[in-house]
Amino acid sequence: MKVEVITIGDELTTGTIQDTNFTWLSEQLSLNGFDVIWNQIVRDQAEDIQRALLASLGRSHAVIVTGGLGPTTDDITTEIVARTFGLELSLHEESLQKIRRFVESRGRTFSESQKKQAMLPSGALLLPNKLGTAPGYFLKVKETTFFCLPGVPQEMKQQFCDGVLPELKKLIGPSHFYDHRVLRCFGLAEAEINECLKSHDFGPLRLSYRVSFPEIILKLVRKGNDSTSVQRGLDQAEAYIRQALGEKIFATGEETIEQVVGRLLKAQKATIALAESCTGGLMTHMLTNVSGSSAYVDRGCVVYSNRSKQDILGISPDILKEHGAVSGVVAKEMAVQVRRLAQTTYGLAVTGIAGPTGGTKDKPIGTVHIALATPMEVREKGYHFPLSREMFKIIVAHVALHKLRRELLKRSSGEI
Amino acid sequence: MKVEVITIGDELTTGTIQDTNFTWLSEQLSLNGFDVIWNQIVRDQAEDIQRALLASLGRSHAVIVTGGLGPTTDDITTEIVARTFGLELSLHEESLQKIRRFVESRGRTFSESQKKQAMLPSGALLLPNKLGTAPGYFLKVKETTFFCLPGVPQEMKQQFCDGVLPELKKLIGPSHFYDHRVLRCFGLAEAEINECLKSHDFGPLRLSYRVSFPEIILKLVRKGNDSTSVQRGLDQAEAYIRQALGEKIFATGEETIEQVVGRLLKAQKATIALAESCTGGLMTHMLTNVSGSSAYVDRGCVVYSNRSKQDILGISPDILKEHGAVSGVVAKEMAVQVRRLAQTTYGLAVTGIAGPTGGTKDKPIGTVHIALATPMEVREKGYHFPLSREMFKIIVAHVALHKLRRELLKRSSGEI
Repeated sequence: MKVEVITIGDELTTGTIQDTNFTWLSEQLSLNGFDVIWNQIVRDQAEDIQRALLASLGRSHAVIVTGGLGPTTDDITTEIVARTFGLELSLHEESLQKIRRFVESRGRTFSESQKKQAMLPSGALLLPNKLGTAPGYFLKVKETTFFCLPGVPQEMKQQFCDGVLPELKKLIGPSHFYDHRVLRCFGLAEAEINECLKSHDFGPLRLSYRVSFPEIILKLVRKGNDSTSVQRGLDQAEAYIRQALGEKIFATGEETIEQVVGRLLKAQKATIALAESCTGGLMTHMLTNVSGSSAYVDRGCVVYSNRSKQDILGISPDILKEHGAVSGVVAKEMAVQVRRLAQTTYGLAVTGIAGPTGGTKDKPIGTVHIALATPMEVREKGYHFPLSREMFKIIVAHVALHKLRRELLKRSSGEI
Repeated sequence: MKVEVITIGDELTTGTIQDTNFTWLSEQLSLNGFDVIWNQIVRDQAEDIQRALLASLGRSHAVIVTGGLGPTTDDITTEIVARTFGLELSLHEESLQKIRRFVESRGRTFSESQKKQAMLPSGALLLPNKLGTAPGYFLKVKETTFFCLPGVPQEMKQQFCDGVLPELKKLIGPSHFYDHRVLRCFGLAEAEINECLKSHDFGPLRLSYRVSFPEIILKLVRKGNDSTSVQRGLDQAEAYIRQALGEKIFATGEETIEQVVGRLLKAQKATIALAESCTGGLMTHMLTNVSGSSAYVDRGCVVYSNRSKQDILGISPDILKEHGAVSGVVAKEMAVQVRRLAQTTYGLAVTGIAGPTGGTKDKPIGTVHIALATPMEVREKGYHFPLSREMFKIIVAHVALHKLRRELLKRSSGEI
């Protein structure tokens, strides 16, 4: 079933804000098995909105219109929808009461201009707004159903999930069974994932990739005749992918690497201390973005200067001189010392050259050493990531956190 | 002059990636005085691309088409442009040689499929691609000029700046003098800025705001009869705004607060050490995102646990017990100690409660103390930012870095 989107607002056509509604809507619609064919972004201009509506009529089975439902004079979507399709506007009493109650419950006074939001085209059915005053609605014109939603992302999303998606599923009929799953992969390029999976026949399941640096997101969408077969198909595909890609699949849905590591540390009542040089605090920042991380993050030492490596971690000047600050030996020392000083279960350390300056022939820009100290041992590995400064920091932080994740998994599986 | 954009690609209509080209293009075009009226996002489907092209023809003076210029079979933009407007495709020799040289200079072999990228519609003029193989081009159909550019943002931007913008300026004619200026503001809400500036008559200058949390970006666009009057108009407006908003304007153009602070520290040959609790490393991460920051960032201590505050900074357990870790006294101690240990010019410290848990009646979530130790003194201030964990970290890091910035400005102006 073909669906398209019309996005209305001067703030979009002047580049004042980035539209995110279309990307969100098109992903949700695709994951639910609808074909998104078009997005038109237009100004708050009567003539342009009218042209956009007429272009969509007949071309798609459903059209989602966002924006221009507010109480101010430049919010003209409803007026233009009515005019374009020759419909009368009338006051929707139920909607008016809801808006009035919403406004008054927030201690504000209901104003005449808000009455406008309760004027709906004849034949329109309401999509309640739980988060604001602008109600959405939908109406059928010939063979096309138009859904008009507010432009505020939160309100739009709520009305889409609660109102639009169920209606669209009714429109497409009862034989439409769709579901999806999202798997997050780290440590393989898109082409390598493709190579691992290409010999497998996924049948009616649609598999797609999205690069979200430095991760690849795998989306599995499955259609079927009933929900059992859809779930079974997704289970089988997920099992195959997990076997093929192994521990490179580190999370499902929206879970981040810092959340995965936090969950594992918490479950094992383990703690962590970090010693960062080239990542400049990013690893500790990521870990502490997770609520409750103070239970397992003890400290992070951003030892940027050589003196700070000596002062805070007690790394001897001789070692620094002999091997250089960017070396496996120093990385190991950093991990061991930060763990010992903090008396944590783990010590994680990185030292490298982020660039764009500071590289040498022996140690070019992008050189990095990552070390993990555990209760049993300390392990270190060298890498080379010749990327921009910002991307270098990101990839190094992720590689280091994945090292910790694998260690935690081994421990929880009883391997160590 | 009316301009519109057509964006082509299945990855956009399925929500696989967020389109950023339109926002960038519409901002650039608006800043240069063009009216952006429409954006159509369509799939890699011949029929849809054709319909989108025909919808734009006549409606706008210029149409920018992005995407679908690559070497693979689903890249069909050029073929459809030619078919839609009844133009022949022919091999563009100069372009072919450029593509061949580009591919070979990267040690790869030129393939037949890349030849396709050198096939241009008759009458098309080349827009050279300095960063990749896909050349852009433009051609006039009736009264509308179509510019076809690759979808890769970097390549699109280069071709737009070097090729499209100069052509558009030619199209609009010599009497079109436009220029713009961008001012970055921190510490005032949009409504407060508006209040400060509303009594002033900016004449023909267009002033707009964009929220880029936690900053407000002010955009000044000025039209005039010659470039002198345009520059004079911008100078006057900028001078007025700087006087009205004072040191809240902290940068122009794309400069970030961490770049501003870095520039000032470098100029004064000053150094900095950080002690972070609730920001979890974000301040140090921001400062070290700037290339060359190792010249002035000595260290950052993320002292998350009480023990780490004692170990690393030598804060006495008595003080922690008496005042609590989140207190003005501890913030001051952190700033003074980290500065003393690192022997830096400045010590900057924050301690607070990011939430969503950990608040008390006396110290609710969002409480934070920020302290700056200088060669002369230590100053501390308490704040309350009841925001999400992520936004709290961001605002606190910015407030702290702006405190440092004001100190550096005072010093450079000889005030201290």
